[in-house]
Amino acid sequence: MKVCRRETFNAAHRLFREEWSDEKNLAVFGKCSHPNFHGHNYVLEIWVEGEIDPLTGFVIDLKILKDIILTKVIDRFDHRNLNLDCPEFKGINPTTENIAKVVWEILRKELDAKFELEVQVQETEKNKVLYKGS
Amino acid sequence: MKVCRRETFNAAHRLFREEWSDEKNLAVFGKCSHPNFHGHNYVLEIWVEGEIDPLTGFVIDLKILKDIILTKVIDRFDHRNLNLDCPEFKGINPTTENIAKVVWEILRKELDAKFELEVQVQETEKNKVLYKGS
Amino acid sequence: MKVCRRETFNAAHRLFREEWSDEKNLAVFGKCSHPNFHGHNYVLEIWVEGEIDPLTGFVIDLKILKDIILTKVIDRFDHRNLNLDCPEFKGINPTTENIAKVVWEILRKELDAKFELEVQVQETEKNKVLYKGS
Amino acid sequence: MKVCRRETFNAAHRLFREEWSDEKNLAVFGKCSHPNFHGHNYVLEIWVEGEIDPLTGFVIDLKILKDIILTKVIDRFDHRNLNLDCPEFKGINPTTENIAKVVWEILRKELDAKFELEVQVQETEKNKVLYKGS
Amino acid sequence: MKVCRRETFNAAHRLFREEWSDEKNLAVFGKCSHPNFHGHNYVLEIWVEGEIDPLTGFVIDLKILKDIILTKVIDRFDHRNLNLDCPEFKGINPTTENIAKVVWEILRKELDAKFELEVQVQETEKNKVLYKGS
Amino acid sequence: MKVCRRETFNAAHRLFREEWSDEKNLAVFGKCSHPNFHGHNYVLEIWVEGEIDPLTGFVIDLKILKDIILTKVIDRFDHRNLNLDCPEFKGINPTTENIAKVVWEILRKELDAKFELEVQVQETEKNKVLYKGS
Repeated sequence: MKVCRRETFNAAHRLFREEWSDEKNLAVFGKCSHPNFHGHNYVLEIWVEGEIDPLTGFVIDLKILKDIILTKVIDRFDHRNLNLDCPEFKGINPTTENIAKVVWEILRKELDAKFELEVQVQETEKNKVLYKGS
Repeated sequence: MKVCRRETFNAAHRLFREEWSDEKNLAVFGKCSHPNFHGHNYVLEIWVEGEIDPLTGFVIDLKILKDIILTKVIDRFDHRNLNLDCPEFKGINPTTENIAKVVWEILRKELDAKFELEVQVQETEKNKVLYKGS
Repeated sequence: MKVCRRETFNAAHRLFREEWSDEKNLAVFGKCSHPNFHGHNYVLEIWVEGEIDPLTGFVIDLKILKDIILTKVIDRFDHRNLNLDCPEFKGINPTTENIAKVVWEILRKELDAKFELEVQVQETEKNKVLYKGS
Repeated sequence: MKVCRRETFNAAHRLFREEWSDEKNLAVFGKCSHPNFHGHNYVLEIWVEGEIDPLTGFVIDLKILKDIILTKVIDRFDHRNLNLDCPEFKGINPTTENIAKVVWEILRKELDAKFELEVQVQETEKNKVLYKGS
Repeated sequence: MKVCRRETFNAAHRLFREEWSDEKNLAVFGKCSHPNFHGHNYVLEIWVEGEIDPLTGFVIDLKILKDIILTKVIDRFDHRNLNLDCPEFKGINPTTENIAKVVWEILRKELDAKFELEVQVQETEKNKVLYKGS
Repeated sequence: MKVCRRETFNAAHRLFREEWSDEKNLAVFGKCSHPNFHGHNYVLEIWVEGEIDPLTGFVIDLKILKDIILTKVIDRFDHRNLNLDCPEFKGINPTTENIAKVVWEILRKELDAKFELEVQVQETEKNKVLYKGS
């Protein structure tokens, strides 16, 4: 049984590698490398897999899962610049893939080991990623 | 190859355990334990996995799958109170997890054993569950 | 210039008239008259029309509008039984139309008279209403 | 008869007034005033009202409307920082209201005077504005 | 008070004028003029404006409105070729605008004169029209 | 790590078997067998699974994936009649299942063998299929 909680945050970011020229960054990352940043409404789907507790009928209390997501993920990234404000992305390009990985690693530490965890991050109506851990 | 049929029903429910005090029910289930019930528009996604029939090009005729879902699931739960009207939830808290399990068990009996079955139930825009069977 | 804030609440309700027989209620209101209630995820769109404040660039601060909606509407109706728990619907059938009217009347008192107000209430994916005041 | 074309762009922005202190900006604009910007997936709905051309059956050829929106609006704002990269917002706070106004003024010049124009801008799942012109 | 019922139908169509050459049709209608048709999932939003009946709390019983839409509109156009199967479009290009107009004229005859009627037709995620009558 | 690109196309189709009578086709395929075709807005979700490139932070550059989908799939099927215009469906009923299979086979040839590929095709709001390859 898997349960899912959906939350959103809005952030600015830019894709580029410091050691590359502007031309190379533009060639590889296109408009996403524009120097003054752009931004997205990111949509998270946090999936937790486990057994149903026969007393409550819950796999995990979604109020608790929600609080973890809000305090550990949304509060850090919402209305922030992922490149400048968020040390989690120091040296890491804030692609949707890396956002999913960072969110997964944050939440993995907060959840009991008995739960499996998957993180889906949607960046636009056309692009999303799903990470099930390493 | 997996095919999916989406159907909806609207129902009232309440989460609580009779043997617990009101305080304990409120502490565990929060607003979901309010005594006079609340309700949701539930969205089902019924996924059936199998081989494509080379004659029809169907895994399963979705008209048939739809009829099974409507007669066996929607007719029972739509515009009902899951706690009071539905014996399927006698002694079982109608959490989204348990709704998915009950729907899965109902549909499992109706489908040929050659098909795999998964049931997704969405309770709100933020909460959903997926059950693949025991 | 019109601005819109979207909020949701989940409630149980039942459509019926006390002075009518069960048969008449069923004939007029169909499944919506089932005695033990059913429920919906209601989606509100609150539209406020006014001039842009040249200092802030806002018609109305949506954080303030959100707080009014949450404290005056959502806190009253969310996870409640509209028929049993909400005196606003005493003697009034909680149809989507009447919910829109009640919400409009609540919010009208909270907003400066310089603003126009419209309330949209969506009950299901197929049914919604829009009320612009009397 | 009104026709609508939907397009999207992704941009960074920040709400603040230069002449105000950081404290006042935070008090008025909240998280939206964070100094390093955040961002959104903006959704435009461009509504054009007019008569149906009896030859084509179109009010306006949506391919032409689309091209105008893409070249005059999306190319300017997509993957940009509205505060830093877009002279249209010099001295104007890039609130959703002002974005709608700026887009309306851009498009108004491109469209034949026989058409009425409305611009809806959605900033998040919860916030949107509609501008019908002055 | 306005109420809205949403229904869908799936149809094939083609935009072209018989008296024009293939080149001219392609120049004006683009891919929409391809000779063997293409198709869409059309989404109707039927808005009816009127007074709330104080007995029922309804502007119009949406079950009745639904039946009218299904029997008079959906049954005629669903899983049909608008150009070949539907006499309503004889000599009329089945653009979204003309579909809205045809649907409005069909429904106008079915509804009591005390009601105002608006018809929205969505052809794709990016294109829709709204018709309020002549 | 899986990444997803969403694209759409609009096409006409018809489900039937030439060697069957009209009656048998109607009995098996219902309205989908109507002789003059109907159509849909098809929504593709193309999922590609692989490792994150540590330099770019991408599993696959979605601009490249998008170009492959547009040139190899959308250009072939968009605004076409799947039965008459598309040799890929010669002798194959263009059911959603077979569309997913055909799209998967087209894209499989275009993608590096190191990637896993899944194709989801949505035909209507209620019906979709997912194909993970043979």
